Amino acid sequence: MKVIVIGGVAAGMSAASKLKRNKPDTSITVYEYGEDLSYGACGMPYYISDLIPKEKALIARTKSEFKERGIDVKTSHKVISVEPNKKSVTVKNLKTGESFSDDFDKLIIASGASAIRLPVKGKESKRIKVLSSLEDARDLKHVLTQNPVKNVAVIGGGFIGIEMVENLVEMGINAHLIEMQDQVLPGYDKDMMAHVQTHIEKKGVKLYLNQTVSQYETTDDAITVHTDQETISVDYVIEAIGVKPNTQFLENSGIKRIKNGAILVNDKNETSHQDIYSAGDCASVYHRLKDTYESYIPLGTHANKAGRIIAEQLSGNDERFKGVIGSSILKAFDLTVAKTGLTEKEALSLNLNYGSQTVKVANQAGYYPGAKPIHMKVIYDKDTCIIKGAQMVGEKGIEGRINIFASIIWNENTAKDVSSMDLAYAPPFSPVWDSIQIATNQIKCK
Amino acid sequence: MKVIVIGGVAAGMSAASKLKRNKPDTSITVYEYGEDLSYGACGMPYYISDLIPKEKALIARTKSEFKERGIDVKTSHKVISVEPNKKSVTVKNLKTGESFSDDFDKLIIASGASAIRLPVKGKESKRIKVLSSLEDARDLKHVLTQNPVKNVAVIGGGFIGIEMVENLVEMGINAHLIEMQDQVLPGYDKDMMAHVQTHIEKKGVKLYLNQTVSQYETTDDAITVHTDQETISVDYVIEAIGVKPNTQFLENSGIKRIKNGAILVNDKNETSHQDIYSAGDCASVYHRLKDTYESYIPLGTHANKAGRIIAEQLSGNDERFKGVIGSSILKAFDLTVAKTGLTEKEALSLNLNYGSQTVKVANQAGYYPGAKPIHMKVIYDKDTCIIKGAQMVGEKGIEGRINIFASIIWNENTAKDVSSMDLAYAPPFSPVWDSIQIATNQIKCK
Repeated sequence: MKVIVIGGVAAGMSAASKLKRNKPDTSITVYEYGEDLSYGACGMPYYISDLIPKEKALIARTKSEFKERGIDVKTSHKVISVEPNKKSVTVKNLKTGESFSDDFDKLIIASGASAIRLPVKGKESKRIKVLSSLEDARDLKHVLTQNPVKNVAVIGGGFIGIEMVENLVEMGINAHLIEMQDQVLPGYDKDMMAHVQTHIEKKGVKLYLNQTVSQYETTDDAITVHTDQETISVDYVIEAIGVKPNTQFLENSGIKRIKNGAILVNDKNETSHQDIYSAGDCASVYHRLKDTYESYIPLGTHANKAGRIIAEQLSGNDERFKGVIGSSILKAFDLTVAKTGLTEKEALSLNLNYGSQTVKVANQAGYYPGAKPIHMKVIYDKDTCIIKGAQMVGEKGIEGRINIFASIIWNENTAKDVSSMDLAYAPPFSPVWDSIQIATNQIKCK
Repeated sequence: MKVIVIGGVAAGMSAASKLKRNKPDTSITVYEYGEDLSYGACGMPYYISDLIPKEKALIARTKSEFKERGIDVKTSHKVISVEPNKKSVTVKNLKTGESFSDDFDKLIIASGASAIRLPVKGKESKRIKVLSSLEDARDLKHVLTQNPVKNVAVIGGGFIGIEMVENLVEMGINAHLIEMQDQVLPGYDKDMMAHVQTHIEKKGVKLYLNQTVSQYETTDDAITVHTDQETISVDYVIEAIGVKPNTQFLENSGIKRIKNGAILVNDKNETSHQDIYSAGDCASVYHRLKDTYESYIPLGTHANKAGRIIAEQLSGNDERFKGVIGSSILKAFDLTVAKTGLTEKEALSLNLNYGSQTVKVANQAGYYPGAKPIHMKVIYDKDTCIIKGAQMVGEKGIEGRINIFASIIWNENTAKDVSSMDLAYAPPFSPVWDSIQIATNQIKCK
C-alpha cells in the first residue's frame, strides 16, 4: 500500500506515525510545503517571548527521526493539485521549481490552515505579521527581540490574540488589542469575558473593543493602524483574526468542501472521494451537540485524534471519530479561561430550551489558605436537565473542572447525576461539595 | 412533623438545614453530644499547625445561626437509647446529668464516629491524643504549641496520619510515622505509595512500616512507644488508626448494623426501621462498583450528600443516594495523592478480570516551563475495557484529573471512550493528548 500524506504537522504526522507503527510495510511519502515538521504550534506565543527559549523544544520529531522510522518526508514540496480519478497528486519542489506527479493508493490531506489577512489599504506592509507557522514565530521572535520594540498592535482577540498580548507584556512591550466584536474570545459568552477583559487591562493591555481596522499606514520606523474610531501608531502589527483551510489546491478536484473551504469528512475521516482522507485544520469535524459534520474547529487535539483515526482506518481497524463538543482552554496572564459544550449564544442559535446557571464558587475549601474564586456558567437543557455547556474563568482549579464537565457533557449527564457523583475531596483542592456540584445543586428542572 | 436529629456535624446539620429550607414548618430538634456544631473536620490538621489560625474558620454555622433558622440545637446532649417501636429516644443532658425521653415522627441518626484506640499496655497515658473531633483538635493545638514539643509519633499512615505528619513538620516538630502495614495509605495500591513514602521521608518524616505498637510507657516528660522492632521516645503520640461508628447506644434498638457497627441504610438512607434514617460516619454507604450496601467509607462528602437525601425523602421528594466509588484525595507535602474507583487490590479481591496500566505522564506540555510528572495507574475490566479505577501521585494537575476519572467510572466509559473525549487543551495545562488519554491510549482490549 502506497500512502501519500499532504502536510507534515499535527494531523499528517500523527497519521503517518501511527500507520507506520500499525503496518510497518506501508510506503508513506509526506509532502510538506514548509521546512518544519511536527511542531507544537500552540507553544509558539511562549517561544516568541522566550519563556520557551529554544525552538527545538517545540519539535516533537525531526525529519531524520521520521526517516529512521521509514517515513519519507519531503519538505519544501507543495502539492498543487489532486486528481482523485487518476489517484495521483501533482507536486512542486519549491527549491528546484520542478513539478512532478506521484500516485497513491490512499491519500491523506492534512494541509492545515493559514492566517486570514485583513483586506484593507496598506496591507502589504512588512510591519504586519501573522502567527500561523513556526516560520512566522521565528520571524516574530526575531523582529521583536532584535530591535527595540515599544508598541505592538494585535488585531483579533481570539486565542492567539490573547496569548500574544500576554507574551508581549511579558517582553516589556506595550500591547494594543483591537477586536471588532464587543468582547474578547467571541466563542465564549460575553458576560464571562467581562472578567477576562478587566484582568488583561489591569495587566497593562490597551483594549479596543468594537473597532474595525480600516487602513494601515507604514513609515520607515512605524505602522499606524486606523480603526473606525482611533489611530494607533506602533512598531508592528500582528494580525490574528482567524484561519482559513489550505484547500485552494483542491478547487478542481471535485472533493467536497464546506462553506469556509474546509474538506468535508465523515466519522472515518473519509472525504467525498474513496481512498482520500483528511484531518486537521484543513478539515471539518463532527460536532456531537450540534449533530453536524460541517463544524470547523481547528485545534491540535482534534488534529491528533483525527490523524489517528485515519491510521486505524488504513490499518483495517474500524475506529471512528466520535466528534467534538467545543472544549477549549487558555491562559490569560493569571487567569485560566475555559469552556466545553455549548455557550449560551450557541444554545440560543440552536433554539434549545436552555437554562443558564452562573455561580461564583471557590476552587478549594474557603478556610484553606489561598482559595480563589471561579466564575462558572453552566448551560443545561430545561426539558431534560442534561448539562450542555460550561464556561469558567478564575485563577486556580479550572483546567481539571472544565474536563470533568467535558466528560459529563459527553455522557449526557443531568444536573442531578453530577450532584450525585463521588468526586474526591480534601480542603486544599475543593469545597466539600465540589465547585461544579455547587453549580449543579442550584439547577432546578421539572 | 417532628424530627429528631442525633448528631450536629456534617450529615445531621446538612439534613436539618435542607429539610428546614424545604419544609419550614417542620419541628427539628438536634441532640449533639459535644459542644461544637457543623465544623469542617477535614481542616483540623491545618488548624493545629496554625496554617488555619482561627477555629472559627472551620465552623460553617453556629448554634445561634441554626436557632435563627428555627432548628432547635441542644449541645452536650447525648442520646443514650432509641426505642423504635415507641418512636422515642432517651437523652442525657451531660451538663445536668438528667435524662429524659423525647418523641419523634422521624428520626435521623447522624452520630458520627470516634477514633479507634490501640488496646495496648499504657494506653491510658495523657500523652496519647486522637483527632476525631474539634475538641480533640483544640487539645492537640494547645499541647503542641504551649510547650516546647520536639518529637511526636503518629500511629497509622492513613489520611489523618499523613496530614498530621505534614503539619507537624510544618510546625518544626520531628514526626515519626508508625504504620502496621507495608505501605502508607493502605486503601491505595502499594506500588503507587512508594512515591509517597519516598517524598515524606525526604521531607523529614521518620517512617516505620511493618511495625506494630505493643506498649506505651509514660514518664513525667515523655512517652515511649514500643513497637515489635523499635523503641521511640517522643513528647506525644497521636493515634490515627481509624474510626468506629458511634452506634453503641443502638445495641438494644434492633436497628440493623453491619460488621463494624455502622448502621445499614438503603438508597433512601432508611435504616431497617421505618421512619428512622441514618447518614454520615455512623452509617453504611452503597458502593456502585462493589454493588453492596455494606460499605463503610466515612468521608465528609458522603455525609453531606446522604444528609441531603434524607432531607429530600422527608420532604416527599424521592431522591436516592446513588452510591460511592471510593474517590479520595489528600495533600502530602508537595504531592497530591488521589484515587477513584477500584484499586488493584480491590479488583483482585472482587475476582475481576482486570488489567492495570501504569504510566508516568506530564501534567502539562513538556515544553512549557514547570511541567511535573504524574504517576498514574488505571484499572480496567479486561472483558469490557470499562475503566474501573485510577490512582495518581504527583505535584500538579491531579485534583481535576482524578475527578475526570470519577465521572468516567461513574458513567462506565471504556478506555476508547476516554481516548475519544474532547478534553480542553493548552500547553500550560496539559499535553495535547491529555495525560489521562495517554494512559487510556495504551490500554488494549479485545
